[in-house]
Amino acid sequence: MTIRTLAVIGTGLIGTSVALAARAHGVSVYLSDRDESAVRAAAVLGAGRPQLPRDPVDLAVLAVPPSQIAPVLSELQARGLASSYTDVASVKALAEREILDTAPDPSRYIGGHPLAGRERSGPLAARAELFRDRPWVLTPTRLTSRAAFGRALDLIALCGAVPRVMRARAHDDAVALTSHAPHLVASLMAARLREGPVDAARLAGQGLRDTTRIARGDSRLWSDIVESNAAAVADILTRLQEDLSSVVAALYDLADRERGRELSGKSRHTLVDLLDRGAAGVGELDEPRPGQPVPCPPR
Amino acid sequence: MTIRTLAVIGTGLIGTSVALAARAHGVSVYLSDRDESAVRAAAVLGAGRPQLPRDPVDLAVLAVPPSQIAPVLSELQARGLASSYTDVASVKALAEREILDTAPDPSRYIGGHPLAGRERSGPLAARAELFRDRPWVLTPTRLTSRAAFGRALDLIALCGAVPRVMRARAHDDAVALTSHAPHLVASLMAARLREGPVDAARLAGQGLRDTTRIARGDSRLWSDIVESNAAAVADILTRLQEDLSSVVAALYDLADRERGRELSGKSRHTLVDLLDRGAAGVGELDEPRPGQPVPCPPR
Repeated sequence: MTIRTLAVIGTGLIGTSVALAARAHGVSVYLSDRDESAVRAAAVLGAGRPQLPRDPVDLAVLAVPPSQIAPVLSELQARGLASSYTDVASVKALAEREILDTAPDPSRYIGGHPLAGRERSGPLAARAELFRDRPWVLTPTRLTSRAAFGRALDLIALCGAVPRVMRARAHDDAVALTSHAPHLVASLMAARLREGPVDAARLAGQGLRDTTRIARGDSRLWSDIVESNAAAVADILTRLQEDLSSVVAALYDLADRERGRELSGKSRHTLVDLLDRGAAGVGELDEPRPGQPVPCPPR
Repeated sequence: MTIRTLAVIGTGLIGTSVALAARAHGVSVYLSDRDESAVRAAAVLGAGRPQLPRDPVDLAVLAVPPSQIAPVLSELQARGLASSYTDVASVKALAEREILDTAPDPSRYIGGHPLAGRERSGPLAARAELFRDRPWVLTPTRLTSRAAFGRALDLIALCGAVPRVMRARAHDDAVALTSHAPHLVASLMAARLREGPVDAARLAGQGLRDTTRIARGDSRLWSDIVESNAAAVADILTRLQEDLSSVVAALYDLADRERGRELSGKSRHTLVDLLDRGAAGVGELDEPRPGQPVPCPPR
């Protein structure tokens, strides 16, 4: 085990959960957050000491929004906080590009993203078990050192997660599809719920609750996430927009014909085709493919 | 109890579940379905006898797609199958209009819709408990008789559900928002899952599974449902489409600026505003308002 001391920068849900998992394995954990009350709450939960140490720690975990990764890394490296650095942000390519351009020592950094979360945010929602058996993506660059890679793998092991190595861009394209676009789509649907008949929600079932659940969540954090992966998310939503236009046109056509009691084979086909493709798409989630083996660390 | 004999027309998930609930209360149940294997499966499950009786039953439940309610009712009334009739379709206004125009005796009919379901369909997915504590909407017309109303209330009691009385149009507007539009939105998102990187689904979490779960389900039945409520669903999706256009434009703007490292306050505001409205919309589902009392049956 290469991690005896750990610093966690940002004691929200994810940072505090990492800290709790490390504490459960006897690691000395130091906590920091711009928000004094968040760091105190994390410390009270037993996540670590509410201060940063004088001597360098083995690993620092940046649990800050995607847009803050590069500037915070530069600041921490300038003061020599840690031997190695990783982060847990859900977008990787933008920060990686900035870090390769501007960080004092990019070789000490490896990007990371644990695929875990809850709708609740903040340290009080944290759990040491949050990452258990979940994928945790690492995105080494051509400069990432063997030591930084190894410490990140050890952190993942401490958290009980399953490492997966990907290129930052491939990661971001995947999560645009599996997380960022779905979040916005849930928000788009949920936003309608305040526009309808006042008592419509009384007829809501589990289906509606499930489709909109992820639209809870911190709007500013999610705006930062989605903005950091804007082009990939926009491309997916553009394809969705094309389908949506066809469906709306088909529905208005069918509503007209309904009055006239005629058939409209083409519009009906548009609906059935979308529903079929949707059902097939959900089917993709049924087929867990075998995990990609973790290749040897570079250098 | 006004129901000693019951006919169930259509032994899919809902029809068979109604039949099982009635059987559990000792009601004699007769089953019919265009699909011989569906009616046999329901009978084997103990849902009733796989044939229609010679003498009229107290109540017939039409568990057929929305577009089939009016023609099937006319056919059954012509042969005198039952004293009263109801249905369980998830769209009410279109069938009601047709029935008032064409049914042999509209006074013997009352529309109904139990707000319950599963992604699985067919008789083998049926459960007597499916409706327990769920809302069950009744949509009496100006012609509905006291006897038909009373028998429908008794059926709801047999099923352990909670009656709610609404106008057909108000019902359809509400479920367009809480069920039909969300189903299409889930399909629109799920359809993207076959267009992405081949291994993206490996990074899927519970959030994606929940947002797309309802896109499973019988495409032809859902097409019939959505078509029967086409105008109301189209109006909701049109508002969603407007929001979506703004969000896509904002994302492309932010993607450009990302390259240029400038800020774009307006586009960011568009994102945060949508996310805020989405979170507020989900909040609507947190506030169960007290149930509307059931008014006295008409006439």
